[in-house]
This record gives sequence, structure tokens and C-alpha cells, in this order.
Amino acid sequence: MDERIKKQIEFVLEIDKDKNIFRQTHLTNHGRNENDAEHSWHLAIMAYLLKEYSNEKIDIARVMIMCLIHDIVEIDAGDTYAYDKDGLKTQKAREDKAKERIFSILPLDQRNEFISIFDEFEENKTPEANFAHAMDNFQPLLLNNSNNGGDWRGHNVTSEQVYNRQIKTKAGSEKLYEITDMIIKENIKKGNLK
Amino acid sequence: MDERIKKQIEFVLEIDKDKNIFRQTHLTNHGRNENDAEHSWHLAIMAYLLKEYSNEKIDIARVMIMCLIHDIVEIDAGDTYAYDKDGLKTQKAREDKAKERIFSILPLDQRNEFISIFDEFEENKTPEANFAHAMDNFQPLLLNNSNNGGDWRGHNVTSEQVYNRQIKTKAGSEKLYEITDMIIKENIKKGNLK
Repeated sequence: MDERIKKQIEFVLEIDKDKNIFRQTHLTNHGRNENDAEHSWHLAIMAYLLKEYSNEKIDIARVMIMCLIHDIVEIDAGDTYAYDKDGLKTQKAREDKAKERIFSILPLDQRNEFISIFDEFEENKTPEANFAHAMDNFQPLLLNNSNNGGDWRGHNVTSEQVYNRQIKTKAGSEKLYEITDMIIKENIKKGNLK
Repeated sequence: MDERIKKQIEFVLEIDKDKNIFRQTHLTNHGRNENDAEHSWHLAIMAYLLKEYSNEKIDIARVMIMCLIHDIVEIDAGDTYAYDKDGLKTQKAREDKAKERIFSILPLDQRNEFISIFDEFEENKTPEANFAHAMDNFQPLLLNNSNNGGDWRGHNVTSEQVYNRQIKTKAGSEKLYEITDMIIKENIKKGNLK
């Protein structure tokens, strides 16, 4: 087997571990915690399905691969809950280290390509990154809303915290932000968000 | 909320159930059974990563969305193991019914689009469908090989059965078929395949 494909296969097997990284979000119907791989699957389909709501024209293949790989660093760095203040302080350092190790399994050209996709997502400046972030915010909001806000109630999350996070949704999609705003208001009324 | 986005959101929540459809394949490191959503995530990343090995030029966004949605019908139809003779006889009827119900949650234009993507995968005639099928065969082969052929041993699978299935890999990628052939031969030698 030549070196190039050997490295690619090693990477394919390495990222299998993302299926065992669990998030704070729960599946619909008050299900178990969601893992990173299935979360990323959901985002990529949503990106394709909802692309008509992007504020700007997007390269959908780029958005999809961004959604699919954006959480792979959590294999080493672990999941950092969106409202965990202490965790958020060390998140970047942990994820940078993970990024280097995991993507360096790939042949150099693909290591560089995957890191550039990951960094583009993190920097959140392009239309593709904005829309991928909108998906990354909108998906747990929908799951959580379907479970009557259980994840917010469990972590005593405030509406201010949710609005701060959802600013990124607005940058990707005004339309999805409108729906987001409607859902947040409903959950404040129900007492699910303080 | 307008009708269109309401239907799209209903579909997003419906397909969450794909995370609870379990396959016969086990995760690496002798892990638990894999579910459809994370399996599909893995295929879509592999398609992007390994696209240089496609026999023909492919539209990678089309291959990725095909990989992402190809197992959604199993929400109703259940997973049919690749070597389950009785299950395979009724698979098409079960999946056709599921396809109608699930994709019809979407607005009509998107229902038609998603069904055409699903049917293209099933008919397996385009370069995109061939490459998506190569991923769908190559991924469980890699996982199973990493677990010393446990899934084959557990089901008394023969090398003839595996070769019959892997014909589809060859149609999508000669290069990945070469690797497949190498892996099958190793597993015959080890006694993992009869």
C-alpha cells in the first residue's frame, strides 16, 4: 500500500473516535446525549436543505465539509459546552493542539487543506463559515426546543447567553435568526430560559 | 412561521431518528454498534478525502449529500444487513414506502429533489452514485478490518459474499478496490472470512 493512501486510511480510522465524543445536547423525544459525528451529519444535511436562507451566495460543498469536520478536534480536546465559562477560556489552546495532531495524520497537502477549512470555520469571516455557524447554533436550538428546553433548564442558561451565541446565526442567515428569536421568546415565556 | 420553513424544520427533527438506527458494523477499538447518522457522516468525509481515487470526474457536493441521506429510509425500514438473504428480499418494498413518507414531509420541490438523489444512489449508474457506493462498502470494510474481522466472523460471512458486494467498489474506484482486495485476502488468510 503506498504511503499516501496509508495515511488517508489512518485518518479515516482515527476520526471514528468522534462518534464517542458526547455533547450536552439531547436527541429529540428526550433521547440520550448527542455525539459529535451525528451532530455534524445533521448540520451538513441542514446546510444543504436550508441553503436558500443564507444571507450570501455560498459554495455548498465547502459549507458541508466545514460542518462535517468542525468538531473533529474534540477527539483530543473534548466537548466544550457553549455556556461553560471556564471551559471556554482554555478551549482555543486545547483545540489548536488537537488540530495539529489529528490533521497531521494526513498527507501534507490534505493536512493543510483540512486545517484551512477548520480555521476558516473558526475565524467566521466568509459567507460559508457564517452559514456553517448558523447551522451549528440552529441545530441544538431546534433539538432543545423539541425537548421543551431541557438542556437550558438543566444548565440554568439565561436568554442573554442564548442571544449572545445566536448573533452568529444572524450573520449567516437573517431568516433563521427570525425563527431563532421566535423560539427563544417562546422559551422565555414558558420559563425554560431565565 | 411560513409553511415552507415549518416543513423543513419538521424534516430536520424527523431525521434525528436516524441516530437511533443501529447497524451490524462495530466502531473501531471493538466499540459498540454504529448508527446510521454517524456512518453517513463518515462516508461523506471519506468521499471528500478520497475523491482523487474516483474512476470518473464527480460533483463532490452531490456525492456528499447522497452519502448523508442514503440511509434515512431506515428510520422506517430498519437496517438490512448486507448479508441477510431474507431481509434483502423485502428491502426495496420497505424502503420505497419509507422514502415516500419521510421525504414527503418536505416542501414538494425539495421532496422531489431528495427522492431523486436517493434514487440516483439506489440505481447506481452515475459516477457520483458509483463513488458513493464505493464509500458505503469501503467504510465498514475498514472498520471491520480494524476489529480483526469480528463482524464477518460473527455472521459467518464468506469471502464470496464480500467479493460480490465489493463489485460496486470497483465501479466507483479501481484504486480503492485494489486495497479492498488486499484486505479481503488478508482476512481469508487469518481465518476471519471463510
